[in-house]
Amino acid sequence: MDYENFFSNKIKDLKAEGRYRVFADLDRHAGAFPRARVHLQNGSTKEITVWCSNDYMGMGQNPEAIDAAHDAIARRGVGAGGTRNISGTCHNHVLLEEELADLHRTEAALLFGSGWIANMTTLSTLGALIPGCVIISDSENHNSMIEGIRHSRADKKIFAHNDLDDLERKLRETPKDAPKLVAFESVYSMDGDIAPIKEICDLADQYGAMTFLDEVHAVGLYGNRGGGVAERDGQMHRLTIIQGTLAKAFGVVGGYIAGSKAMTDFIRSYGAGFIFSSSMPPAVAAAAQANIRYLKAHNELRERHQERAATLKRRMREAGFPVMDSVSHIVPVLVGDPVLCKQASDDLMNRHDIYVQPINYPTVARGTERLRFTPTPLHGDQDMDYLIDALKEVWTRLGLKAAA
Amino acid sequence: MDYENFFSNKIKDLKAEGRYRVFADLDRHAGAFPRARVHLQNGSTKEITVWCSNDYMGMGQNPEAIDAAHDAIARRGVGAGGTRNISGTCHNHVLLEEELADLHRTEAALLFGSGWIANMTTLSTLGALIPGCVIISDSENHNSMIEGIRHSRADKKIFAHNDLDDLERKLRETPKDAPKLVAFESVYSMDGDIAPIKEICDLADQYGAMTFLDEVHAVGLYGNRGGGVAERDGQMHRLTIIQGTLAKAFGVVGGYIAGSKAMTDFIRSYGAGFIFSSSMPPAVAAAAQANIRYLKAHNELRERHQERAATLKRRMREAGFPVMDSVSHIVPVLVGDPVLCKQASDDLMNRHDIYVQPINYPTVARGTERLRFTPTPLHGDQDMDYLIDALKEVWTRLGLKAAA
Ligand SMILES: Cc1ncc(COP(=O)(O)O)c(C=O)c1O
Ligand SMILES: Cc1ncc(COP(=O)(O)O)c(C=O)c1O
Repeated sequence: MDYENFFSNKIKDLKAEGRYRVFADLDRHAGAFPRARVHLQNGSTKEITVWCSNDYMGMGQNPEAIDAAHDAIARRGVGAGGTRNISGTCHNHVLLEEELADLHRTEAALLFGSGWIANMTTLSTLGALIPGCVIISDSENHNSMIEGIRHSRADKKIFAHNDLDDLERKLRETPKDAPKLVAFESVYSMDGDIAPIKEICDLADQYGAMTFLDEVHAVGLYGNRGGGVAERDGQMHRLTIIQGTLAKAFGVVGGYIAGSKAMTDFIRSYGAGFIFSSSMPPAVAAAAQANIRYLKAHNELRERHQERAATLKRRMREAGFPVMDSVSHIVPVLVGDPVLCKQASDDLMNRHDIYVQPINYPTVARGTERLRFTPTPLHGDQDMDYLIDALKEVWTRLGLKAAA
Repeated sequence: MDYENFFSNKIKDLKAEGRYRVFADLDRHAGAFPRARVHLQNGSTKEITVWCSNDYMGMGQNPEAIDAAHDAIARRGVGAGGTRNISGTCHNHVLLEEELADLHRTEAALLFGSGWIANMTTLSTLGALIPGCVIISDSENHNSMIEGIRHSRADKKIFAHNDLDDLERKLRETPKDAPKLVAFESVYSMDGDIAPIKEICDLADQYGAMTFLDEVHAVGLYGNRGGGVAERDGQMHRLTIIQGTLAKAFGVVGGYIAGSKAMTDFIRSYGAGFIFSSSMPPAVAAAAQANIRYLKAHNELRERHQERAATLKRRMREAGFPVMDSVSHIVPVLVGDPVLCKQASDDLMNRHDIYVQPINYPTVARGTERLRFTPTPLHGDQDMDYLIDALKEVWTRLGLKAAA
């Protein structure tokens, strides 16, 4: 086989479909978020406004996190030096795990290199090691959960997205004495809808199932201390496992799970993606801890964040753009075609100095290609004025669809 | 099912087997490596010498990396803000990928959050997407490679560790026209032996197979510029894929692959663990790049590193300890029992202020439990004197086996 040829052809396929990805090459500016400098393919650079960051609160530039990182680097150096078991546990990890357990009011928490690994490892370990475990998974769950479930080789059932009747059907169909795990997210990040956590926990209790909740797009953003939608809804104590990331609202990188001491110790002791990988640098842990603390104490930032998202949705709707239904901070605008979606994004960047990434398959289903805006507390009214005008120009010129 | 009970029982199993893991809780000191402060379980702390770090060169405290990290944090903040595709590509990532491609003299390189993810994602993507691909894997390959191969669901064959005859048998048995991938490591990190890279490449060429080489425990440490054992052996141009980590000799965190433009673009475009996970902070990339550059230019550090390892092995053998065969910088000393292995480690820590982690199953096979020493260029002769004396005391008191 000509392997090089195979790889090239697979790339050609993507290009033909209009969904070959070109990454925007950015220099973010600490202190000036959401402004950044983009390095263009012709070698020049220019200043732009970022409208699609998952640094949802601008915490990547929080002075307290920056100070904590500087301090940890000066005192501890730039790396941890090993896997958690082999010389790679820093005291910063221990403190961060305590901070996370406090955030979610759980007995314990466990760190991973990323939210992706946290999902992959936790779900694959549970599914593989609990004999006869059946995993009941929301149809819109994130890739990392799907990969973890698949990798476990446990029996799995998919329930229709956020559909309690279908979830109950799947629970009822599963043998009474089989161990069960219901896996779902709180905020679904591409559509911006939110799971009925209480009702899902009620069903799980009724049918004796564990619950695994991915709050990646909600921690820091919902609940009085940023514990997520489960905190907001008063359900945080009911989940078997809460999973989150340190890379979005908390502004750094890394992932975690929170729950009972026995559960976290089980994953700590058996989870391959935890055991066999080097741990995060002390400065990463220190910065994340600083941001978690900060967001625990600054609910007004969450209020401002929700206001900004509501305002942008309202203004876009008033201007006739096809804003998709979203009850969260996510503002998706439908384009419905991968080539036009990329073109709209390119035009916004090239003509208007606005960066919003096209979201195409496989991140979302074909035919639902979209621009996904994530207004932060730092996007002002003038940024919105400018954005709406730019969108009008692009929408008209490309003949994109208005709201139905 | 009582899930809590299940988790607790699985932990009890580990304790009964003597292989429940307790992590040493460390504060490393930038500027004083290999000294660190350990937080003991009774709440007190004390100064110790680390003898099992995978920060093999002490690059975690390299002033150039520390400066690069400070600078990136001050200018760019503490996080990247998204996945590589969705606002999370920093110019620091681009520069680091260029540095890595230059290190391995390949057309391109691709960053991951860790070496674990690099292996998992690359192998699972190749195995799943190349129709009919057969993966031929060394029996001692690391967990991350095994998980990737397993997750791909491709046909796989295991060849006996570093055994060219068995590899050829497996290649010969595989249909001529089937796409094939030979997956192996250069330095096997628990035994310290090294693969015959040239001969494996010869066989791969003869049978039309791709090659995937994990150089996690060799990059920065072997070859004139730290390109790994493949560089040392003049084989770097022959591998289809070279995989490495930024968390060991390069002292920070993260993983990567290097190879042709088409291959890296293929994994970039189809690899789930790459696409669906937030990218590393700019400061992590900047620090790693600084250390790669530094180690490219400082071959004398590699010479000193090899001398230290050879000296420690010789001195331990002279003192009668059962040093396992190792042709690399790894110095494993056999204990052969999980409980005694942990006891020896605990005694070294408690009585002698020496930290070396016990290595038990599943990291190594049962019956081959060991202490694994990793002398760095910063471990002086007096550190060795002190270590040998401490080992003598512990070996005698616990009645551990001497060399055969
Ligand atoms: C729902 C969800 N879960 C998990 C992840 C992975 O988290 P991380 O970026 O920390 O790997 C993501 C995306 O990044 C996500 O959207
Ligand atoms: C051979 C080998 N490959 C890959 C890895 C994973 O690399 P990382 O620690 O960067 O996740 C390790 C251990 O950590 C390893 O020993």
